[in-house]
Amino acid sequence: MTNELIKELRELTGAGMMDVKEALDATNGDKEAAIDFLRKKGSVKLTKKADRVANEGIVESYIHAGGRIGVLVELNCETDFVARTDDFKQLAKDIALHIAASAPLYVSSAEVPEEALLREQEIYKEQAQGKPQDIVEKMMSGRIQKYYEEVCLLNQPFVKDSSITVQDMLGASVSKMGENIQVRRFARFVLGN
Amino acid sequence: MTNELIKELRELTGAGMMDVKEALDATNGDKEAAIDFLRKKGSVKLTKKADRVANEGIVESYIHAGGRIGVLVELNCETDFVARTDDFKQLAKDIALHIAASAPLYVSSAEVPEEALLREQEIYKEQAQGKPQDIVEKMMSGRIQKYYEEVCLLNQPFVKDSSITVQDMLGASVSKMGENIQVRRFARFVLGN
Repeated sequence: MTNELIKELRELTGAGMMDVKEALDATNGDKEAAIDFLRKKGSVKLTKKADRVANEGIVESYIHAGGRIGVLVELNCETDFVARTDDFKQLAKDIALHIAASAPLYVSSAEVPEEALLREQEIYKEQAQGKPQDIVEKMMSGRIQKYYEEVCLLNQPFVKDSSITVQDMLGASVSKMGENIQVRRFARFVLGN
Repeated sequence: MTNELIKELRELTGAGMMDVKEALDATNGDKEAAIDFLRKKGSVKLTKKADRVANEGIVESYIHAGGRIGVLVELNCETDFVARTDDFKQLAKDIALHIAASAPLYVSSAEVPEEALLREQEIYKEQAQGKPQDIVEKMMSGRIQKYYEEVCLLNQPFVKDSSITVQDMLGASVSKMGENIQVRRFARFVLGN
């Protein structure tokens, strides 16, 4: 029973030190079993992964083309333990590289400002003029989807494997690392722009 | 007469290729003398350094404390030649380090939003209540100055030499490198904040 494991379980479950020690004793230090033990005992009410607070992680940067493009990105997870793994660090590097290459404007579609969306819709409406209503609506929804794929990080095809989106790639990491992982924010500077 | 020197002079003066070649021929390749030659000939009207356009430079990053603080900064100068010097690169590194350590909110006092300033003034007024008007005004102006020194990058004491401000340090670089140098923008992320 390491202190690190105790600390991780306390962070993950919010349970007290003694409860966590008892749970680890009872389960021979098996993390997942200890979590179940704590849940049965009622010392913790685990929420879904996606609802758990992710405010650990790292801030990563990437400088491209001798300083002509720079990216800063904050990638969050739930515990410092995951944040310090090589897999997580590599994930942050990949996302920073992706942002440098693909120039997203927002993290997700939820961040696209109302005005930007309305402006896009106006353009599409113009282009669809004269067509039947149901066709127009179908076109519109397809075009908006396309717009998200262009400007939203999570909807973009991942630069290192364009058969999946960045969201898909993150989803695979969530499964692998067993923690909620989120891109919190990013900045991308292009020299003189 | 190198092609690099010709390019630099064209960038600096806006003069044509043939004029620049003639000027360099006439001055045995002395840069400053060639600029004077072009000015006398009327091929160029040099503005003050501070007015010349600075849109070359580099984007630099700095990651502190194993990824808990990250900084991205764009430092501009006038030519690619200066941007590629070690002095300029070191300057960008120093400023990124300074931003990580000193946590400015704005580049300069001109960027402080009206509301933030009014909020500060309200607090100071409250604190100065009951004092004579001239004293209050003196206090206010001192406090505003102090506020700028806290939140504006250029007004902050430079982290590597607190006897000068970042603005002073930049001014010395402008003199040394002979080009207008400006911090265009920065981002500073603190993990989970």
